[in-house]
Amino acid sequence: MKKNPPLIQIPGFQFSGAVAGIKQTKKPDLALIVADRPVKAVATFTTNLLKAAPVLQGQSVIGKGKLRAIVVNSGNANAATGPKGLKNALTTAAAAAKQLGCSKSEVLVSSTGKIGVQLDVAKIIRALPAATKALAPGNFSAAAHAIMTTDAFPKMHAVRGKIGGKTFTLAGFAKGAGMIEPHMATMLAYIFTDLDLPIAAMKKAFGKVVEATFNSISVDGDTSTNDTAVLLASGASGISVKPGTASWRAFEGALQEVCSKLAWMMVQDGEGATVVVEVHVKGAKNADSAKHIAYCIARSPLVKTSFFGKDPNWGRVFAAAGYSGETFDTSRVDIFYDSVALVLNGLPTPVSQEAKAHKVMKNQSFRVLIDLKGGKGESKVWTSDLGYPYVKINAEYRT
Amino acid sequence: MKKNPPLIQIPGFQFSGAVAGIKQTKKPDLALIVADRPVKAVATFTTNLLKAAPVLQGQSVIGKGKLRAIVVNSGNANAATGPKGLKNALTTAAAAAKQLGCSKSEVLVSSTGKIGVQLDVAKIIRALPAATKALAPGNFSAAAHAIMTTDAFPKMHAVRGKIGGKTFTLAGFAKGAGMIEPHMATMLAYIFTDLDLPIAAMKKAFGKVVEATFNSISVDGDTSTNDTAVLLASGASGISVKPGTASWRAFEGALQEVCSKLAWMMVQDGEGATVVVEVHVKGAKNADSAKHIAYCIARSPLVKTSFFGKDPNWGRVFAAAGYSGETFDTSRVDIFYDSVALVLNGLPTPVSQEAKAHKVMKNQSFRVLIDLKGGKGESKVWTSDLGYPYVKINAEYRT
Repeated sequence: MKKNPPLIQIPGFQFSGAVAGIKQTKKPDLALIVADRPVKAVATFTTNLLKAAPVLQGQSVIGKGKLRAIVVNSGNANAATGPKGLKNALTTAAAAAKQLGCSKSEVLVSSTGKIGVQLDVAKIIRALPAATKALAPGNFSAAAHAIMTTDAFPKMHAVRGKIGGKTFTLAGFAKGAGMIEPHMATMLAYIFTDLDLPIAAMKKAFGKVVEATFNSISVDGDTSTNDTAVLLASGASGISVKPGTASWRAFEGALQEVCSKLAWMMVQDGEGATVVVEVHVKGAKNADSAKHIAYCIARSPLVKTSFFGKDPNWGRVFAAAGYSGETFDTSRVDIFYDSVALVLNGLPTPVSQEAKAHKVMKNQSFRVLIDLKGGKGESKVWTSDLGYPYVKINAEYRT
Repeated sequence: MKKNPPLIQIPGFQFSGAVAGIKQTKKPDLALIVADRPVKAVATFTTNLLKAAPVLQGQSVIGKGKLRAIVVNSGNANAATGPKGLKNALTTAAAAAKQLGCSKSEVLVSSTGKIGVQLDVAKIIRALPAATKALAPGNFSAAAHAIMTTDAFPKMHAVRGKIGGKTFTLAGFAKGAGMIEPHMATMLAYIFTDLDLPIAAMKKAFGKVVEATFNSISVDGDTSTNDTAVLLASGASGISVKPGTASWRAFEGALQEVCSKLAWMMVQDGEGATVVVEVHVKGAKNADSAKHIAYCIARSPLVKTSFFGKDPNWGRVFAAAGYSGETFDTSRVDIFYDSVALVLNGLPTPVSQEAKAHKVMKNQSFRVLIDLKGGKGESKVWTSDLGYPYVKINAEYRT
């Protein structure tokens, strides 16, 4: 498989990035994604009770399983904006539909940026003709740039594979994890393939992969009001794949790789992150229990500051597992930092091991493995550290 | 009521603080609390699955409802120390019992300090005779000092009241909240009264007050392996109080005041705290729901960094309530910082309000009120901010 080709193109899709003037910086803040014809689409949205207006709009159109276009603005999240906010999201969809000559129920709207400020929808309407004109199969990167807020770099990944001698593509772009200053929100991810997929199986596969990737990362433990992940399948490759076949596994592998890379980049670009840590819990009662324990560790400010300080403070990791509320035999627990054993059967290893673990922690990424030896439940969560850069980004007064 | 008299004495109890040499600093690290005779005792312990050896010892002796003495060492938590650790806790209790001439089942042991290091119990045994010799009714403060680890100041509070013309005293001392560097653990609180109380009602009252005070604070959201709170009643005042009477309400009021002051001081002295914030959730479905939402807000690193930055970032507060998993009508939510309204009926107030809230946040403490207007559930949680001092204290490499 050839990865990250310099120019990412997915047959059946066109992209553009434009300046609508929502961001005060005058940087690109409007991304347009248009399929040549209505394509199969599935999506997952934030579980936050406070759902932004575009999330409500997205949920109302995704049920039909068909989309023609996605309009994403950055700079304003259109969240906590009440009925007027919802009207603005609907107006955006209608304006894009008119511009593109499709139904407004085939347009999904996303927003990211400030919470609690009404979206100046006129700016989007004014920018739509130019954004439409700029649409091109090769403008993937321009769209990826236009959805950025405080992201330090755009997040893109593509995979090409072969099925039955024919080439298929699966690619995606995404933006930042967690809630980002000032009042910035949102993890957004858009995944595209030219495969033809049956909608029910596509939905199931996407749900599974989202759970193991975008829903297995933690920068600050906060779930935003706008989180959205969409998978679109154009079928333009002429390859139809069915579940339970080798071709389907090729599709799933590509989907897992793309979402996994994008999720990793989100943590890497997490607010002030200096390290990416994989918290790997093994031997739990079941997968849910493992994931809950992994999140308790990955979200603990004490654990995260120890990652920043390169301090192999296994006591904090052990204690965080202990207060998760999950049950396990503490006298069987092993804790490793990469291959360095710090706890075996619930008891600390010789202090000399801590110096070895300290070295491991100096790498750009490392793994913390907690083996509870009490079952087959397993989960991996990726997290970042909590240090001065995090405080600097998140504590500054906004006005 | 006369509060915080210069010399705290509670009839029926003697105290001392000694240097056992467990702390490398040679500061006092052994507190001895001895009742003139076995007294009624109730306690609550950490819910962390990883319970320190002294917690297991404490749980094994508290069932009888009678204690003669408490031995507390600081500098070593005797946690994650396996069977040898438990043996050391039992040996400590036995040595103190022998020294004091009582049963070892009347001695409760507490520890706070490093996790994963075996306790040098010989040091405690060697120091016990001097600690016993130093016992005096007026050495309350010396004992309060001896349980400190990274605490910036000792936490003590006393209340004197009158019941039926007779004076009673209720006083307590405590140490730090959360998990403290390096590998430091534990919230410890010891409360004393000279009232005579029926054990079942005493247990019930203490449970209720602990829930509303020590269990309603959050410094870093981590529950330690050693948390312990004990209430002892000597009866030396000659006043017997029964539930459902005005006298009982006087006792409960005094207990609430002492535990409340100690809890507040713990947050105030939280790791690198610069402000104490009361997160007050009103109008929730029920009290549990309110407490859960309050904790989600109080633990959010994004909310806590905004407190440090004096940034009235109500979007983070609202979003944290939203991802709590509790249900409420987001379009009815009001958010106030002290008396400054930032959100009314789910929508932001004019931006000028934020400048007013910014001023409020410059105080040493303030209140964030979230009124969900959906029920009678209410809860208050006290939390601290997350800033550079927190990172400094928690991220330093220990060796």
